[in-house]
Amino acid sequence: MARHEFEPAVFHSTIGSHPAVLRIEPGDTVVTSTVDAAGRDARGHLVATPGNPQTGPFFINGAQPGDMLEVRFDRIRPNRDRAVASASIAPGVLDPGYLRDQPAAPERAIAEWHVDTGQETATLLSPDTALGHLVLPIDPMLGCFGVAPDRGQAISTATSGPHGGNMDYRGFRAGVTAFLPIFTEGALFFLGDGHALQGEGEITGSGLEISMDVEFSVALHPQASIHWPRGETADHLFTVGNARPLDEAVQHATTEMLRWLHDDLRLDELGAHILLGYCAEYDTGNVYDPAYTMVCKIPKKILPAN
Amino acid sequence: MARHEFEPAVFHSTIGSHPAVLRIEPGDTVVTSTVDAAGRDARGHLVATPGNPQTGPFFINGAQPGDMLEVRFDRIRPNRDRAVASASIAPGVLDPGYLRDQPAAPERAIAEWHVDTGQETATLLSPDTALGHLVLPIDPMLGCFGVAPDRGQAISTATSGPHGGNMDYRGFRAGVTAFLPIFTEGALFFLGDGHALQGEGEITGSGLEISMDVEFSVALHPQASIHWPRGETADHLFTVGNARPLDEAVQHATTEMLRWLHDDLRLDELGAHILLGYCAEYDTGNVYDPAYTMVCKIPKKILPAN
Amino acid sequence: MARHEFEPAVFHSTIGSHPAVLRIEPGDTVVTSTVDAAGRDARGHLVATPGNPQTGPFFINGAQPGDMLEVRFDRIRPNRDRAVASASIAPGVLDPGYLRDQPAAPERAIAEWHVDTGQETATLLSPDTALGHLVLPIDPMLGCFGVAPDRGQAISTATSGPHGGNMDYRGFRAGVTAFLPIFTEGALFFLGDGHALQGEGEITGSGLEISMDVEFSVALHPQASIHWPRGETADHLFTVGNARPLDEAVQHATTEMLRWLHDDLRLDELGAHILLGYCAEYDTGNVYDPAYTMVCKIPKKILPAN
Amino acid sequence: MARHEFEPAVFHSTIGSHPAVLRIEPGDTVVTSTVDAAGRDARGHLVATPGNPQTGPFFINGAQPGDMLEVRFDRIRPNRDRAVASASIAPGVLDPGYLRDQPAAPERAIAEWHVDTGQETATLLSPDTALGHLVLPIDPMLGCFGVAPDRGQAISTATSGPHGGNMDYRGFRAGVTAFLPIFTEGALFFLGDGHALQGEGEITGSGLEISMDVEFSVALHPQASIHWPRGETADHLFTVGNARPLDEAVQHATTEMLRWLHDDLRLDELGAHILLGYCAEYDTGNVYDPAYTMVCKIPKKILPAN
Repeated sequence: MARHEFEPAVFHSTIGSHPAVLRIEPGDTVVTSTVDAAGRDARGHLVATPGNPQTGPFFINGAQPGDMLEVRFDRIRPNRDRAVASASIAPGVLDPGYLRDQPAAPERAIAEWHVDTGQETATLLSPDTALGHLVLPIDPMLGCFGVAPDRGQAISTATSGPHGGNMDYRGFRAGVTAFLPIFTEGALFFLGDGHALQGEGEITGSGLEISMDVEFSVALHPQASIHWPRGETADHLFTVGNARPLDEAVQHATTEMLRWLHDDLRLDELGAHILLGYCAEYDTGNVYDPAYTMVCKIPKKILPAN
Repeated sequence: MARHEFEPAVFHSTIGSHPAVLRIEPGDTVVTSTVDAAGRDARGHLVATPGNPQTGPFFINGAQPGDMLEVRFDRIRPNRDRAVASASIAPGVLDPGYLRDQPAAPERAIAEWHVDTGQETATLLSPDTALGHLVLPIDPMLGCFGVAPDRGQAISTATSGPHGGNMDYRGFRAGVTAFLPIFTEGALFFLGDGHALQGEGEITGSGLEISMDVEFSVALHPQASIHWPRGETADHLFTVGNARPLDEAVQHATTEMLRWLHDDLRLDELGAHILLGYCAEYDTGNVYDPAYTMVCKIPKKILPAN
Repeated sequence: MARHEFEPAVFHSTIGSHPAVLRIEPGDTVVTSTVDAAGRDARGHLVATPGNPQTGPFFINGAQPGDMLEVRFDRIRPNRDRAVASASIAPGVLDPGYLRDQPAAPERAIAEWHVDTGQETATLLSPDTALGHLVLPIDPMLGCFGVAPDRGQAISTATSGPHGGNMDYRGFRAGVTAFLPIFTEGALFFLGDGHALQGEGEITGSGLEISMDVEFSVALHPQASIHWPRGETADHLFTVGNARPLDEAVQHATTEMLRWLHDDLRLDELGAHILLGYCAEYDTGNVYDPAYTMVCKIPKKILPAN
Repeated sequence: MARHEFEPAVFHSTIGSHPAVLRIEPGDTVVTSTVDAAGRDARGHLVATPGNPQTGPFFINGAQPGDMLEVRFDRIRPNRDRAVASASIAPGVLDPGYLRDQPAAPERAIAEWHVDTGQETATLLSPDTALGHLVLPIDPMLGCFGVAPDRGQAISTATSGPHGGNMDYRGFRAGVTAFLPIFTEGALFFLGDGHALQGEGEITGSGLEISMDVEFSVALHPQASIHWPRGETADHLFTVGNARPLDEAVQHATTEMLRWLHDDLRLDELGAHILLGYCAEYDTGNVYDPAYTMVCKIPKKILPAN
């Protein structure tokens, strides 16, 4: 149950079987940091290639393909006070041709925000709009994390899949536990792409991009094969489907929740259909990245006592 | 500001320019009832052809094409104690082939529920599963309502579009105000398909199907052209996109919210992009019907004071 | 086996259970004409409301729901020498945002073409481009035809479905036989929206829009239920799926062809999968209309002798 | 203009920056072979891990990121007489639930074929169906080839993207020239996954999988940036979009063809829209793999003389 302080020096633009930066045991905690999506650190210095550069990978001793990795995010906290964000909604999220017909539509504009972690607020600094210095509560999260995928793939941190990756789901905040399938020895866990806050769907293609101090703890579940990332909050179990179109992301997330209820929690199949059918909730992770993300949730309180 | 009590005798399987059953004034309230999706009334009698038969249409005096209809749902309350519901998740919501590989998967099973409007609960009566007599809180809503569409169309109540229709969005509950584009003289408002409760996404293809007592009030907004249904709750404004795939429903809902912020609430375009980009929320209406439904929401408290 | 000459006077913007303009017998032939998509006739006069106005409906004596209508297109021939066509590719067929980034991109431009039915050519008259007076061979077809749909629907001639409608498939040319499911007594057959030629996919949203002289013959197949439009050419059988997204149109067309091979031509199921799996061909009807159209084809010569 | 004979010994399950097996010059020809999708060679021996193992990569001297690689397939010829193929259409290509309702539907059945390269035929050996020993003409092609992608990715040979990959387009046959964007020094060209023949759309998820003798020649086009694979046959230019859903594959292919006409062939933008709009043809590559493939084609004879 060691506690490791790890200062990252190398960053990765793909999630793959890269050399481990630290070997840890199940039960250990890691205190580390992530740079922002553009590769800037706590001081604003460019220290990595832009495009969701990742801290890691962390090798979990004993992890084998077919096991499941549990990662509890104990802390996700901005470590500087400036965030940048896209100021325009992506064309693909709007009706085809809509932006072409709006001469005043913002094109790839950038907004700057001041982040106050004491007040837990973000204040719009620029551009100058009718919103003035809009103040929003922050809700820090990690847009991208995951484990090395199968068959030796090295997958761009722009996209996501069964291994996790750039899911851009704002539900991955501190206090949440994530579960990931393990494809390689040691699992090889990566993390990065912090957002001080993000709209549901990430329709601008960004959150308030910022570097983070992160603390996480890991556990191993042997031979607990899962097909897609899962998670648990105080109130919910959830499953994550990453694909295009959104319909297919829904299919993956819903099927994975049905497996959880039936295969893992041993609910009979008909019961699982009814429970999920009438208690399911969905969150939209992102509708911007190369793979979209949909999340299927079930309230823990309605689960039958085991 | 009259209050009409209207007992329906004819029901419609399409939303179109059918003869009005009642003419009302803007500001009036109508107290009426709807049969369930299968055409059964408060006593369980089959009085209409199955397939979301609609009460109406109500002709709103003065309504002209290009105006906007406001409908406030004052009351949506089950008027009997039995509901039926599909007990199996639709194949299209799960990974292709998943159900084929599950020999025990429920196939078009039906669940029966007891609905207690005093306790505001629904209790599972059958089939017999590990859930036993699962009790869920009810949350009554209307799955299908709308106005006569343009160019003389008569659109099946199985599907939805700019005119409303079978949106199966559980956010259309009592207390909510809906806004609809008007395509024909008198608007011609229809309603039906009550659900005592429905899971998000309506992944089984049904809610707890039940007949309802409904009270609603109407208002007219001249020359207030909108493209898709809109709504307002105590806390949110929302817009509704009805299409396949889900991505396109997201495009319609998001574009319509951008129009609301920019064209109607007069926020500058860049401000509208930023506000929506970082405060948007999405609900999944349904991923089952011929047209899916996605809802884009914005919290009213973050809107700039006008 | 009568031959009817029918001059249309009323035109319909929906395909539905409208009053029949002519009652004919199975085996009969009809010689008639269609106006162009904008409602202009052979003389260029505006005689109908724009939006694919339809000639008909023709009532086929003896047709009952559950029967199948056979329509052989004996002749589809432009009856004037001017056609108009969109000169710009629709935004939805291009990468999101692509057109916004092309300042010179044509926006809703219109092209005029001279059609020479003797030479069987179309010559570009305007606008002025590097193509000059581009000459293309004509290939006349009907973009929209179908029968009255079920449950009393009146479906816009902008879209398509199991009943046919605005499929905009350039394979519906003279010499082709179409098969349609029958939903109402008399079938009620409509036709219109002629194109002197059309690109595959109809990516501009139009063909060379022109009025047509049409001759067609009908036959009835009692209790020969089909789910989607089918067709036959000299060389191929084909099935037509109408839906969004394109994937779903593929699903409908492929499933319908499997039914044809297995249910109707009595091929064993495994044989049907193999034959279709390795001999299927696909045409893209349109990727523009509210419902897209994909066509699954199978060469007749590879069908086992019955 | 050397001619290299290369016998592969290592095979790759990803397309990425793996060590080059041979360095060649622009203008050179390579005579080599590929194993089948399951990793079996000309003698039927298992020599590679199943899953479209690739021969290569070939390093093209002088190739730089931003250049374009030209690969002419001079010969693609089966080098054994046995092929295996899936005998069942994939569930995702059929209506959801269709297969569940067909008790006799084939489930993951395998067909064996005898391939006669002299007669240029494939004969069905098993399973036993009403097709008997169906004989089809062979049409050998490569399902998967491509170059190392950007940012150090190693992309599974199950899928495809801008770098090529598992496109499963039957138009990549001998005589065709392919063009690929170059992302890394030396380009690093891979090839494999031969099909003796394949149905359009690859709806069973396989072709007649077989090992091949392949001869190809390469050329370099400096600073000729393209976004997606392109190709040329005797009669057509074509562009390839790889994505889900099919609509998005259409968008990529169509946009890339517009760039070819406008940016490279210097047709004015309006002319390019009209030419493509009325002369486009589409082929369906595959509707099975993680990324689908659509191909946009334009007949060379209608291009304006430069």
